[in-house]
Amino acid sequence: MKKAVVLLSGGVDSTVCMAVARSEGFDIYSITFDYGQRHRCEIESAKKIAQFFGVRDHLIFKVDLRSIGGSALVSDVDVPKRRRAENISTGIPATYVPARNMIFLSVATAYAETIGAGDIFAGMNSIDYSGYPDCRPEFVEAFEKMVNLGTKTGVEGGRIKINVPLIDLKKKEIIELGGRLDVDWSLTWSCYDPVAVDVEASKSRVGERAGDFLACGECDSCLLRLKGFAEAGINDPIQYVQR
Amino acid sequence: MKKAVVLLSGGVDSTVCMAVARSEGFDIYSITFDYGQRHRCEIESAKKIAQFFGVRDHLIFKVDLRSIGGSALVSDVDVPKRRRAENISTGIPATYVPARNMIFLSVATAYAETIGAGDIFAGMNSIDYSGYPDCRPEFVEAFEKMVNLGTKTGVEGGRIKINVPLIDLKKKEIIELGGRLDVDWSLTWSCYDPVAVDVEASKSRVGERAGDFLACGECDSCLLRLKGFAEAGINDPIQYVQR
Repeated sequence: MKKAVVLLSGGVDSTVCMAVARSEGFDIYSITFDYGQRHRCEIESAKKIAQFFGVRDHLIFKVDLRSIGGSALVSDVDVPKRRRAENISTGIPATYVPARNMIFLSVATAYAETIGAGDIFAGMNSIDYSGYPDCRPEFVEAFEKMVNLGTKTGVEGGRIKINVPLIDLKKKEIIELGGRLDVDWSLTWSCYDPVAVDVEASKSRVGERAGDFLACGECDSCLLRLKGFAEAGINDPIQYVQR
Repeated sequence: MKKAVVLLSGGVDSTVCMAVARSEGFDIYSITFDYGQRHRCEIESAKKIAQFFGVRDHLIFKVDLRSIGGSALVSDVDVPKRRRAENISTGIPATYVPARNMIFLSVATAYAETIGAGDIFAGMNSIDYSGYPDCRPEFVEAFEKMVNLGTKTGVEGGRIKINVPLIDLKKKEIIELGGRLDVDWSLTWSCYDPVAVDVEASKSRVGERAGDFLACGECDSCLLRLKGFAEAGINDPIQYVQR
């Protein structure tokens, strides 16, 4: 069985991406980043998803992007809310984390090289997305080239492939694909700005357990998710704040 | 004053690279990685060097590469010793850390973008080096291309430049250059496998203070350093184990 490293954030895209890797018969090593994100409860979702898919190993990799800052996701800057869906894909929003996918894919490369995996899977897509430059196909291609010039694997004639099976799909299509691959949506988490459901949960603003939080329903990530599920005609089982 | 991020390990190359950036008039933000390296005392050297150069800020960035492994530098695999100098540059040694420079440059990119720096300086060189694929010019060029496709800066028409002023220099030439730029060599640390000088120091195998350790004089990094200083005819003031 060929090994693959799968980047797993706990959201819809990375979960469907993992389902694709599994459907292609890979032996999966997932990696989740604990990077100081305010929606830390996504890490708990990622753990459940890794278990659901029966991965070989699930590495939670700590990297403190809060010490650098520069984004609403790793600082106290407000997460933008209630933007019109058609505006989400124009311009780069405050939730952009400088060089995030570059850092994540580099660490995934280290992991792949160490375990002897020739494939990395990542759920980036550039259609219904938040306008992040590091989700575009030209970035992914340039990254793969760089990897094969800068690793022992590449220099010794091997190859590490960066697979981005969702890159050209709309959110609706990603959710339809996940549906066909039997993804359990209740395990996934998308919201950038989780709302605590009770006093105990609110003490830990960043969230330790996904079950203790409701999705805000108003950040870009919630809006794209809600629109995708509605268009796919699939029920989204996670709980949102009632407004 | 233009801002630059300088990767500072505490060794000869990154210190000379910092001296070059300063001589070019940059306002310097240095970054040192605490990545689980066995020669952790290099971090204490880096702090002294940053102070010596009067940098604007010095970020110590924690990233636990030990959780991935795959190298003698971040595991308990033995560091190769007493290799003939002419053999050091052939093949990739056990001290290669998968994707290390990729990860470090990606984090430096995040830092540069956040503080608004258009330049990153790194001390890689591909002549008297340890055979690491991520020290070669073709890797650096591919990395820079990728950065400018995957960042807000690049997409919005700006540019982040990866400066590698030592890339074509021999170790001897790097040390001569550092001499002309008044580098204080006593602050630098190169050894991969520090030897504790006393009982207190030996309790902390990885080293907290550079002064508590002697350089082994036998690892690739020591051998390249000793050869470079000898050829440049400059005195190396750090202490080595007497054998």
